[in-house]
Amino acid sequence: MAVAIEKEKPESERPDTFLRETDSSLSSSSSSPTTSVRARFEKMIREVQDSVCETIEKTDGVGKFKEDVWSRPGGGGGISRVLQDGGVWEKAGVNVSVVYGVMPPEAYRAATASAADVKPGPVPFFAAGISSVLHPKNPFAPTLHFNYRYFETDAPKDAPGAPRSWWFGGGTDFTPAYIFEEDVKHFHSVQKNACDKFDPSFYPRFKKWCDDYFFIKHRGERRGLGGIFFDDLNNYDQEMLLSFATECANSVISAYIPVIEKRKDTPFTDHNKAWQQLRRGRYVEFNLVYDRGTTFGLKTGGRIESILVSLPLTARWEYDHQPEVGSEEWKLLDACINPKEWI
Amino acid sequence: MAVAIEKEKPESERPDTFLRETDSSLSSSSSSPTTSVRARFEKMIREVQDSVCETIEKTDGVGKFKEDVWSRPGGGGGISRVLQDGGVWEKAGVNVSVVYGVMPPEAYRAATASAADVKPGPVPFFAAGISSVLHPKNPFAPTLHFNYRYFETDAPKDAPGAPRSWWFGGGTDFTPAYIFEEDVKHFHSVQKNACDKFDPSFYPRFKKWCDDYFFIKHRGERRGLGGIFFDDLNNYDQEMLLSFATECANSVISAYIPVIEKRKDTPFTDHNKAWQQLRRGRYVEFNLVYDRGTTFGLKTGGRIESILVSLPLTARWEYDHQPEVGSEEWKLLDACINPKEWI
Repeated sequence: MAVAIEKEKPESERPDTFLRETDSSLSSSSSSPTTSVRARFEKMIREVQDSVCETIEKTDGVGKFKEDVWSRPGGGGGISRVLQDGGVWEKAGVNVSVVYGVMPPEAYRAATASAADVKPGPVPFFAAGISSVLHPKNPFAPTLHFNYRYFETDAPKDAPGAPRSWWFGGGTDFTPAYIFEEDVKHFHSVQKNACDKFDPSFYPRFKKWCDDYFFIKHRGERRGLGGIFFDDLNNYDQEMLLSFATECANSVISAYIPVIEKRKDTPFTDHNKAWQQLRRGRYVEFNLVYDRGTTFGLKTGGRIESILVSLPLTARWEYDHQPEVGSEEWKLLDACINPKEWI
Repeated sequence: MAVAIEKEKPESERPDTFLRETDSSLSSSSSSPTTSVRARFEKMIREVQDSVCETIEKTDGVGKFKEDVWSRPGGGGGISRVLQDGGVWEKAGVNVSVVYGVMPPEAYRAATASAADVKPGPVPFFAAGISSVLHPKNPFAPTLHFNYRYFETDAPKDAPGAPRSWWFGGGTDFTPAYIFEEDVKHFHSVQKNACDKFDPSFYPRFKKWCDDYFFIKHRGERRGLGGIFFDDLNNYDQEMLLSFATECANSVISAYIPVIEKRKDTPFTDHNKAWQQLRRGRYVEFNLVYDRGTTFGLKTGGRIESILVSLPLTARWEYDHQPEVGSEEWKLLDACINPKEWI
């Protein structure tokens, strides 16, 4: 059911910040004069957007990102950048959004994993995030997704000084159509290194969370080979988690681009391409049926083109397709059904 | 959330009936000796499956239907038939299923439009239906979907003789990528004629219901140009509704095949094909996000390959695609946004 949030409108210029003036100096935990987490998170995701887009364009060689800036009448806005039908990527979307306002309880339930403690009535909120899906053309080159977000609900108006609640979420995951073990090991190692800088429990825990999250229940298989995923994370120091999210987002290029460089020009057959397209079909199934970001966006009437930029340019559904036992396609499917420890 | 219904298993032979022995002579409304509605509905949908598949194969000229027969440990089974990559159709699926058993309340809520009156606890049910989606290759040839189903919940065990509840649902709808007004008029006229044999209020009511049902809320557009749709229909004579569903199902061939014959060999460009693929992407969005039959099937752990046979062989998502104002593509989109009266 769609809920009434006013439609976004296009803007001709990129603002320096989407924050309200009061947000930038406002510390979420105290009255200290440091720049607020909101402001630092926005700065981080916009820098990551710039650096990822720059690297993608350079690696692609042909395509250029098209930029759309938009604002929400209710508060905030975003920058969507999409490169379509390039030299290396079929579709690459890198979006940031910084939005706030009042959220219907139903949307709030879709936004948080722990729906049990939802209070009735509208919820004042702040949400900022970067979200990206990169679908290459070559069937041996993997799709990458990453998303890092920060969420706050405002302090209750009737209790001045009461703490607002906040949490971080995000992850980076890897979706090849074929397994090259060295690629998967490299990708997971970068995730582990980023995690280990903060807490040795993070990688094993967020790796499993990722395997559990990107599960296509009706197929009994995951959409890909995982990575890390976490959500509703607030039981650590807020500054530590901001640094952790920053480290993860800054690791995307080193985790992904070396793999793309190695695979982007590998010769392939129609058979390889059809298999990639089938796996893209599974990607669509996951995103439209299960992904919380997508279902949240569809329910809240967010900017549809930004939300659905995660869908591949092309996808395929064959009736009752079964890869031959022992084939390369079968090995991928097996690893999607039975997640492995890669490092 | 998936609920626990046991997995179907493949069968090597098509049974004469999927019904239990007690079902065939059991009248649902009284103790009269006539053949039960369950049995007559199964016979009807299996005859329609045979005649539609025969006609499709003849018109296609190249493709042959592959048949899968399956049974459910909980009760009943089905016959899935799929023709893939034929001469005329990219994918044509025609499925029947006749299933019964005990349904978790959550599945029941997904199966019925009026969820308000759901009692807690498992619900004994019977459901039979024919469901078909026909996706042609030529971008000027329309996709067709039809589905007719009959549903019963058992009489409560603690109140012998109490009436069981029953309802009919279904419809036939038309999804071209380009408008040929004569085709749309022909299609809607056949629907209207079938309706008018039973009740003059049916066509206007079910035409509107169809426009309302196949609405992609997050796009603000319908997936196609409609037809008829009805659900939870039980406030008419049961025999009349059985005849009505039979008439509608038997009208599919005359509504659709003449249009296919006219358009299947029309020359087309890459531009036409890409637009068809984009509209196929919308079809996928509707089916995975909104279609009750699909979401019901995914929740109840039904036979996934039968449920998702409705998805096209190929689909496409372009970022922020806007057809040129006044173009043929724009005309189609306009009619999906603003439903028209075609006859």
